[in-house]
Amino acid sequence: MAAYDMQKQDIAKRLARIEGQVRGVARMVDEGRYCVDILDQVAAITRALQQVSLGLLHDHLGHCVADAVNKGGPEAEEKLGEATSAIARLIRS
Amino acid sequence: MAAYDMQKQDIAKRLARIEGQVRGVARMVDEGRYCVDILDQVAAITRALQQVSLGLLHDHLGHCVADAVNKGGPEAEEKLGEATSAIARLIRS
Amino acid sequence: MAAYDMQKQDIAKRLARIEGQVRGVARMVDEGRYCVDILDQVAAITRALQQVSLGLLHDHLGHCVADAVNKGGPEAEEKLGEATSAIARLIRS
Amino acid sequence: MAAYDMQKQDIAKRLARIEGQVRGVARMVDEGRYCVDILDQVAAITRALQQVSLGLLHDHLGHCVADAVNKGGPEAEEKLGEATSAIARLIRS
Repeated sequence: MAAYDMQKQDIAKRLARIEGQVRGVARMVDEGRYCVDILDQVAAITRALQQVSLGLLHDHLGHCVADAVNKGGPEAEEKLGEATSAIARLIRS
Repeated sequence: MAAYDMQKQDIAKRLARIEGQVRGVARMVDEGRYCVDILDQVAAITRALQQVSLGLLHDHLGHCVADAVNKGGPEAEEKLGEATSAIARLIRS
Repeated sequence: MAAYDMQKQDIAKRLARIEGQVRGVARMVDEGRYCVDILDQVAAITRALQQVSLGLLHDHLGHCVADAVNKGGPEAEEKLGEATSAIARLIRS
Repeated sequence: MAAYDMQKQDIAKRLARIEGQVRGVARMVDEGRYCVDILDQVAAITRALQQVSLGLLHDHLGHCVADAVNKGGPEAEEKLGEATSAIARLIRS
């Protein structure tokens, strides 16, 4: 579970690693590597980006959204709807 | 935003419609319809299922998770991690 | 690999099973079962639908698309572009 | 349709742009930007990576897979199954 509880520094490290993976894919394309191997590398980057998104979302749900729901009023539904819409965009991307 | 605020009855209606869509795809396969048209129907069912998931999730985040976070203690992180894991499975399915 | 080489009859069986799974989710909602358990059932249906899509696509690529590419001419690019667009919609659904 | 017919040079340009987008997200995290805005940027990168995958796949289906299918024999099914498995991994990533 703790996997989604990321510090800002951890997210920065993951993004730096993803940047290197993107450069790695560019190198594979340039070297004419086998297409299916490149596709699998791209899928690995997508999964790494999803982990970052889940870390950001975990933090957002635990602070911003839970606070708004706790306070109640129109902002509760607003923050909840906004978070659900963001999750919808993650699912479809 | 209100699109995710579903009543139990609304979810039941959506699921009944999805059941009909699945039967429709079975009919298309049986009739030998063009493959790409069948694929698009299956994609439409997947999107309809995602809407149901988002409705359930919206309710879960606004009640179960927000309550646990506001009470604090170990259950807060437990419910938050559980919800994030469920979102991760939705993203990957 | 053979997992994607489905007969029409196999696809029909899978769709009948999926129909039953959708009814199962409707029952879970009606009984007020725990939200995260319902979400996981919906994710299982999505994966089962994807297997059907992959079976249909495997057949389409091996017959319709490969034939068109073999014949060449404008229809080759047309069928290839159509298949890639269908895959794009699957990825985003 | 032509959107998926990418030259090696076009793919290289897209990957360079994606690398810049990843650096942009790192900057947003560092500056403490609003979580939902960062999530949308990550989703935009995922979509850009999918376009690259679809370009590579389009080329692979039109050359490697179509050639193998047209030659026939065991390699036809092998290449077709390999491509379908790669598409399955894209759908789930």
